[in-house]
Amino acid sequence: MTDTSTNMRLKLPITCFILEIILIILFGVVVVYDHDTDSKLSNEHGNDSHKHADYENDFYYRYPSFQDVHVMIFIGFGFLMTFLQRYGFSSVGFNFLIAAFSLQWATLMQGFLHGLHGGKIHIGVESMINADFCTGSVLISFGAVLGKTSPVQLLVMAIFEVTLFAVNEFILLSILGTRDAGGSMTIHTFGAYFGLMVTRILYRPNLDKSKHKNCSVYHSDLFAMIGTIYLWMFWPSFNSAITEHGDPQHRTAMNTYYSLAACTLSTYGMSALTAHDGKLDMVHIQNAALAGGVAAGTAGEMMLTPFGSMIVGFLAGIISVLGYKYLSPILEEKLRIQDTCGVHNLHGMPGVLGAIVGAVTASVATKDVYGHGLEKVFPDVASGERNANYQGGIQALSLAITLGMALLGGLIVGFILKLPMFGAPPDTICFEDSIYWEVPGEEHHEEQMTAVMTEEFEKLNA
Amino acid sequence: MTDTSTNMRLKLPITCFILEIILIILFGVVVVYDHDTDSKLSNEHGNDSHKHADYENDFYYRYPSFQDVHVMIFIGFGFLMTFLQRYGFSSVGFNFLIAAFSLQWATLMQGFLHGLHGGKIHIGVESMINADFCTGSVLISFGAVLGKTSPVQLLVMAIFEVTLFAVNEFILLSILGTRDAGGSMTIHTFGAYFGLMVTRILYRPNLDKSKHKNCSVYHSDLFAMIGTIYLWMFWPSFNSAITEHGDPQHRTAMNTYYSLAACTLSTYGMSALTAHDGKLDMVHIQNAALAGGVAAGTAGEMMLTPFGSMIVGFLAGIISVLGYKYLSPILEEKLRIQDTCGVHNLHGMPGVLGAIVGAVTASVATKDVYGHGLEKVFPDVASGERNANYQGGIQALSLAITLGMALLGGLIVGFILKLPMFGAPPDTICFEDSIYWEVPGEEHHEEQMTAVMTEEFEKLNA
Amino acid sequence: MTDTSTNMRLKLPITCFILEIILIILFGVVVVYDHDTDSKLSNEHGNDSHKHADYENDFYYRYPSFQDVHVMIFIGFGFLMTFLQRYGFSSVGFNFLIAAFSLQWATLMQGFLHGLHGGKIHIGVESMINADFCTGSVLISFGAVLGKTSPVQLLVMAIFEVTLFAVNEFILLSILGTRDAGGSMTIHTFGAYFGLMVTRILYRPNLDKSKHKNCSVYHSDLFAMIGTIYLWMFWPSFNSAITEHGDPQHRTAMNTYYSLAACTLSTYGMSALTAHDGKLDMVHIQNAALAGGVAAGTAGEMMLTPFGSMIVGFLAGIISVLGYKYLSPILEEKLRIQDTCGVHNLHGMPGVLGAIVGAVTASVATKDVYGHGLEKVFPDVASGERNANYQGGIQALSLAITLGMALLGGLIVGFILKLPMFGAPPDTICFEDSIYWEVPGEEHHEEQMTAVMTEEFEKLNA
Repeated sequence: MTDTSTNMRLKLPITCFILEIILIILFGVVVVYDHDTDSKLSNEHGNDSHKHADYENDFYYRYPSFQDVHVMIFIGFGFLMTFLQRYGFSSVGFNFLIAAFSLQWATLMQGFLHGLHGGKIHIGVESMINADFCTGSVLISFGAVLGKTSPVQLLVMAIFEVTLFAVNEFILLSILGTRDAGGSMTIHTFGAYFGLMVTRILYRPNLDKSKHKNCSVYHSDLFAMIGTIYLWMFWPSFNSAITEHGDPQHRTAMNTYYSLAACTLSTYGMSALTAHDGKLDMVHIQNAALAGGVAAGTAGEMMLTPFGSMIVGFLAGIISVLGYKYLSPILEEKLRIQDTCGVHNLHGMPGVLGAIVGAVTASVATKDVYGHGLEKVFPDVASGERNANYQGGIQALSLAITLGMALLGGLIVGFILKLPMFGAPPDTICFEDSIYWEVPGEEHHEEQMTAVMTEEFEKLNA
Repeated sequence: MTDTSTNMRLKLPITCFILEIILIILFGVVVVYDHDTDSKLSNEHGNDSHKHADYENDFYYRYPSFQDVHVMIFIGFGFLMTFLQRYGFSSVGFNFLIAAFSLQWATLMQGFLHGLHGGKIHIGVESMINADFCTGSVLISFGAVLGKTSPVQLLVMAIFEVTLFAVNEFILLSILGTRDAGGSMTIHTFGAYFGLMVTRILYRPNLDKSKHKNCSVYHSDLFAMIGTIYLWMFWPSFNSAITEHGDPQHRTAMNTYYSLAACTLSTYGMSALTAHDGKLDMVHIQNAALAGGVAAGTAGEMMLTPFGSMIVGFLAGIISVLGYKYLSPILEEKLRIQDTCGVHNLHGMPGVLGAIVGAVTASVATKDVYGHGLEKVFPDVASGERNANYQGGIQALSLAITLGMALLGGLIVGFILKLPMFGAPPDTICFEDSIYWEVPGEEHHEEQMTAVMTEEFEKLNA
Repeated sequence: MTDTSTNMRLKLPITCFILEIILIILFGVVVVYDHDTDSKLSNEHGNDSHKHADYENDFYYRYPSFQDVHVMIFIGFGFLMTFLQRYGFSSVGFNFLIAAFSLQWATLMQGFLHGLHGGKIHIGVESMINADFCTGSVLISFGAVLGKTSPVQLLVMAIFEVTLFAVNEFILLSILGTRDAGGSMTIHTFGAYFGLMVTRILYRPNLDKSKHKNCSVYHSDLFAMIGTIYLWMFWPSFNSAITEHGDPQHRTAMNTYYSLAACTLSTYGMSALTAHDGKLDMVHIQNAALAGGVAAGTAGEMMLTPFGSMIVGFLAGIISVLGYKYLSPILEEKLRIQDTCGVHNLHGMPGVLGAIVGAVTASVATKDVYGHGLEKVFPDVASGERNANYQGGIQALSLAITLGMALLGGLIVGFILKLPMFGAPPDTICFEDSIYWEVPGEEHHEEQMTAVMTEEFEKLNA
């Protein structure tokens, strides 16, 4: 079943070892502990009159959120993609591999761009969260090409996507002063449109040869629900993980909680409404119910109010189900975009919605509503450097930049991934673990059944 | 397989959209951020000499516990019910839907009754935990009617049950000054007896027509164990989530940890003992091992000691296994209570046990044992308003009120749910996903097998 | 299928009840709340001028880590072992049982040895974490004998292993002043070599009779990945759970995070490299990718740097895959060690590696690098009681002691477990749930299929 080009015997080890050795060397040269992780810096006495108490270590503010994000990245994304009947090993396993690579590479790329202090990258729990965030963006793109790419292709995609992610994030957060704590733009919009462009370039006209495997079975849908529910539950932690300490973290988590709850109800409603016989579709439940988290990614830290959050989530669920039902088939037929997981519906459109909601919410921010907390959410507005309308404009501009970067980046990376040496699977065996994995046999009772049947046939034929 | 009455094409969307729109409007009118989530209130300067530091934000005391509770509600309850062989989509999926609705509705109902400040409901992480708690109660009732109800029936049940839950909780906690941090009474006893009464009213004399589907298969039992283990692990967080800061949270978590550990040993012992051939029964392991958490729900925050907690857990496990083995069949035959998940054994009896243990423990509380911490656990006793014996009496009275409210409420709601327009499934296709869900085919290797067989038959027949 | 000797009807209940009753009595006699869980002690006023604020309660420093460790013990270890096709109930279920017992017994054994204050064992969240740690060691040994032991044998093993674990831990941490926060030695090396010696003594020359069940099927490998991913994600919490507050916790978590990420890349590389056709092997991914966590168990809290952590993880992954591929078959053939889960490759060798790395890192510790934080990591070096080289020597000595204790302990316990009364399964039905569990039938569609087939045959035969 494996031909030479897809054999990973040398390609994958060489890629993994070279990448990891480069990472180790670069970490050795430029990465150091930050103030809260370094033994010496954390415990300085003397003229430092503001010696921090242990409970002020950033670890206690952010580590629980970090672990929730970590679960989303490895369990959430990994299991969400196990819905395919014979691609569970690859879904969880490649997710695991490219995430483990991406978080290291992201530490460096994000560090070079906005974590350098005296030529060294300082790292701690916040950089770990940011690395996981960047990884999330790569995994979104993975969803678009799921089943049609080799692990080496995915690692190559990750190298470029992480880099470009860090550049886009730097332009938005550091240069423009955009607010995007939960990453509606930087993570979701970027990851989705990057992946969509990659899968467009990698268009396979004969993919229908693997069509019978590009669907779920009963148990695979249950495994996928593990991913869905974890993403849903921990999205409040995701959106609040790197907001400012105190009320912004608290408020963001709560806004996201209500946005998701509202989204779930509109998703169920729309799923039944758009089915000809009123039956719920697992694809919608697994995906569209999460759109409320994506759409609250930018405005979640703002004074959006639970009321506003619920409206956003409600709309996100509707848009997302409609996307799965009506837009995805059109994208595939007309634009030749084969989006395996429908990331356009879960991350693309809701990400754009989130960016717009963020821009609008920012543009109406006032000192009257935010009080002294304004400096935590909109420091440039609080300092008088810009007014709220201007901030709103910047937010809108950021969306345009993100879309441009993602589409252009995906275009280039798509062509790179077409190089035959990366070992893409042939059209006939997409969505199939056995091309890259040792796959065990099936349940013994079936073997027994087959044995019984064969015996019976032999008797009959005799 | 779907007839008109169970077709959800219009019923479910209408229900979801109307409910969500009402929720959004009510949130817009009455819900505001509390002191720890509002940007302005959190960051007030000036004459407020006690400006809170960020680390004093309630978020950092309760958010990790909240997330553990959240996992119990969505993964724990959801997957615990996937033990049925062909009802996994509905178990996880309807759990998801009614939980997402209930937590929003509970925010309002609990807010109206004990969260109003100047006509507005103030919300933050504590109200989120309380909303999840109330949701848990609805999910317990769901366990009693599992497999025999439509999603619309479940949403209607949730509307009424959440409301009544909030009233009962208000009577106990606000009027009577009952202590019930982990909800042995308010959550478990209430949810169980409410659900048992509903399923009694919805009694189906011909349910045996679906009997062959009302059981597990190998993999479905493993999925259910995911639910069990998560409930078991996070129960310490559940019971301690809304106790006072500091030692009460710490103590409650620890008491629950030991109660559950002891319960697990008695469950395994009883399961082997009551089986004719000494083989363990998955139903017991999946459920009875959790009874120790339920039974520590009221007294967990008190000075129950690990010793006392272990005795309670040990007894809870024994009672629960005996219930599954001997009482459930009697309830079904004699009282016509068809309790799919055996919530009477996991939540009902252990909840009552927990309430009694709480009443006894409260009645012997002394300043000598609790020191200045008495005001955290029994504020009315510490202030001298009542003595410990009186508190114990109040606790016992609260159990009686809860039982009464649950049974009466379940009675009324059961009759409401009998209305044919809610689309209950017929007796012949209970415990079956395909009535409400698009269900995918089975593994491709089976299809292949069938194809091979068919071919062989054709050859033979020729 | 069950004969008298393996019938658990009386053996298991008697064992469970006697053990739990002994535990309860001992807890009643010697266990009390510690300063942070006791109502009176926590809330003392008066001459105690340093009254702790609520946020200084150890609960808030350690409870999130505790819960992560808890998930590793019950979900991580439990599901990791579900890879066997017909041993999922036992893997999760016996893991659950022996863990629930061990954590109680460990509280007592560890308390007797290093938690006594005035004749009483004081407990709180730190002792809960330590109890879970000790439990982890027992579960590692369980991995070596998986599929070949009765639950009573496992409980007996746990009694002895927990005791010996506590003695070894006491010698290392309390007498020698060894540093081993994440337990490369005390947990992993000890658990692995103890279990390997037990399985050596329990050697079954005719185990090949069960060979067809000693392997995975497609879905069982996916269940196992749930265990793997949870272990991987939460290992940073495991290694940092009982380090000192502040920077050590923060640093340990981060070091472990990078060690694991590097380990994952080397594992994937080695897995493809050592397969004749370049296909990845699930056994490697499920296990070897975790070796980086084991290997960072001792040095994780030290100033190992992310660079050093990644080198350690990288090597651990390579060693572990090589062990699975080449060493395990040799151990089985030549040394008669039947190591079901390959704990030698995941916990044994990486544990030894971690101990060595810890010894080396300790021996080069300087005030210059650690600053005032030296007292948090190496109190004896900071106080001038010993120099760093001496500390390094102590660390190396500790490894030797641990290996000796584990091998000797495993030898003795192995012979004890051979007593026939404990109900070990016969060689022909190892790796099979149905000997100790009521196992449900298979999917209904297969039954239907069989029914259809049978009908067809009957027609044909007529």
